[in-house]
Amino acid sequence: MMTSNSPPHLPEKTIAIDCMGGDIGPKVTISGINLYLHEQRKHGLGNDTNFVLCGDENAIITELKNFPDIAKISEVCHAEKIITNDTKPVAAVRMGRKSNIGVAVSAVAEGKADAVVSAGNTGAYMAISKVILKTISGIERPALAKTLPTIRGASLILDLGANTECSPQHLVQFALMGSAFASQVMEINSPSVGILNIGSEELKGNPTVQDALNLIKNIPEINLYGFVEGNDICSGTADVIVTDGFSGNIALKSIEGTAMLLKHAMKRSLSSTFIRKLGCLVAKKGFDDLKSFMDPRMYNGAPFLGLTKIAVKSHGGADAFSFSKAVGIAAKMVDSHLTDKTEEQLHLLDNK
Amino acid sequence: MMTSNSPPHLPEKTIAIDCMGGDIGPKVTISGINLYLHEQRKHGLGNDTNFVLCGDENAIITELKNFPDIAKISEVCHAEKIITNDTKPVAAVRMGRKSNIGVAVSAVAEGKADAVVSAGNTGAYMAISKVILKTISGIERPALAKTLPTIRGASLILDLGANTECSPQHLVQFALMGSAFASQVMEINSPSVGILNIGSEELKGNPTVQDALNLIKNIPEINLYGFVEGNDICSGTADVIVTDGFSGNIALKSIEGTAMLLKHAMKRSLSSTFIRKLGCLVAKKGFDDLKSFMDPRMYNGAPFLGLTKIAVKSHGGADAFSFSKAVGIAAKMVDSHLTDKTEEQLHLLDNK
Repeated sequence: MMTSNSPPHLPEKTIAIDCMGGDIGPKVTISGINLYLHEQRKHGLGNDTNFVLCGDENAIITELKNFPDIAKISEVCHAEKIITNDTKPVAAVRMGRKSNIGVAVSAVAEGKADAVVSAGNTGAYMAISKVILKTISGIERPALAKTLPTIRGASLILDLGANTECSPQHLVQFALMGSAFASQVMEINSPSVGILNIGSEELKGNPTVQDALNLIKNIPEINLYGFVEGNDICSGTADVIVTDGFSGNIALKSIEGTAMLLKHAMKRSLSSTFIRKLGCLVAKKGFDDLKSFMDPRMYNGAPFLGLTKIAVKSHGGADAFSFSKAVGIAAKMVDSHLTDKTEEQLHLLDNK
Repeated sequence: MMTSNSPPHLPEKTIAIDCMGGDIGPKVTISGINLYLHEQRKHGLGNDTNFVLCGDENAIITELKNFPDIAKISEVCHAEKIITNDTKPVAAVRMGRKSNIGVAVSAVAEGKADAVVSAGNTGAYMAISKVILKTISGIERPALAKTLPTIRGASLILDLGANTECSPQHLVQFALMGSAFASQVMEINSPSVGILNIGSEELKGNPTVQDALNLIKNIPEINLYGFVEGNDICSGTADVIVTDGFSGNIALKSIEGTAMLLKHAMKRSLSSTFIRKLGCLVAKKGFDDLKSFMDPRMYNGAPFLGLTKIAVKSHGGADAFSFSKAVGIAAKMVDSHLTDKTEEQLHLLDNK
């Protein structure tokens, strides 16, 4: 194990982890790393990955005693101040570089790590990342994005709440950032981009989405699908769905709430009699598949797009399995050289 | 059967039906009425209901030959012009009183009917209703509302797309209209009202929702819950959920899309092997319950709230079963004297 005074260590891939992450703490985050590595090793991978573990040094070192394999590939960086779920956003931002989130984000800024993962307060994490990591030139605001399962596979939706009010130009930037992610990380060739609206006809909606549509029409690098509606998110009509953070947050949470309701309805309908329970037992493997598909933990990990470096937000209430998925997204983003590609694409536009 | 020249007939309850409704036509709408009456008669009800059937007279009379019982309790009102799904909204509004929608709405304005149901173009129907029926004094804009199933029962959400941009005052009016519907039609005692936002804390969101929250705090007639998030819609956290038409439309369609995706996922997971299919066959009654719960037709019928009379929008692609549900909502709204009660509540506020 190395301490914070060791020289920066950067082998093939290093991920900085905010081990405190809201309230989940090193027990969950380090177990999450363990699950991530375990899953990678199943496929003969994961030997190229090191970690920078940030937060309360004593708590992290204590937890690492249970994971000697992780201790060997990790550097511990102590944070003087801890942002918890109770910390007010303003106070959290003020703690800045000295906080668990700040130390983890700084590790990336200083080149000690290639990506950062935190389950801490979204607003504080976004603000600290923006200040320390900066946005890519040409991008005014980072956006919170997420891949969601669809009937056709998976789509990316952004923004999910980082920017409650957006200009048409912001939506254009989201379209560029989303396209780069979909092609580099999701490996979709020429991903289609839809703008979320209340109708698919060009006359529908508000001036912001209409202006954004017209602006994107003039950018041949973006494969514009056109307007999409709420039901198109889960249909997979477009590979990337662009929206302001207010509508995006409401759409995402409406989807999550519907999944919860239907899980509840399934349980109610299918376990009310002995015969129904018996049928479900016979079809158990099918239900296991369905349960896994409907498990929100499978989709944990929302990247902040538009930053010069990679930052991934985990759900604040994540368990180890869920956190391992967020670590996986960060690792995949590093492997795909996403930020370089986004910059290249923006540079192409600038030179026109 | 009476013709358009018969004197107005108003027994206990008369519902005007736009029989053309987009493209579904008299075959669907009149079969829908038949299903509604059939369902009512199962409970010894429905004998108090008459209809005004509006649209192409010949097409309606031809269809009525299959339903002599309905012919007996119906007046046919011919419309010179028919708004189809291909009619541009501006052209549709111009057809006004002479259109299928206009004739049906006018039947209510003239006192021939107590409520109107149409599956025609939403924008045209809303515009024609607003001009002919007018809004209740104190209400600037009507809103499109819908009851949705939740874990706790059912909640009402409005607006769903009639008003893409809303002021705080509009949201307050929606809260009043929604509360009146929830107490009168859904029979919820002192319904709680939530304002849709991207977080439940009072500091979250945009100035519109924050101002609306502060305005509603000063109206003791509204049982304010506070801010709710997208996932709260299906949880049933509040009885009435108030939002602008842009976010509301996206939330509603995101919910519908998620239900479609999960239906698809269930089919895929549960029918991939013989054993799984067998299990489902054993639990068939449970799946029938679930299918019915997830059937969007069960929830068809969105009232325009805030008008002086009752108008209900059916889904444009409705089948007879689905249309019968929209007729049922209109009937229930007449029985509950909703518009009178909404006016009373607004009057109370005015006199403060």
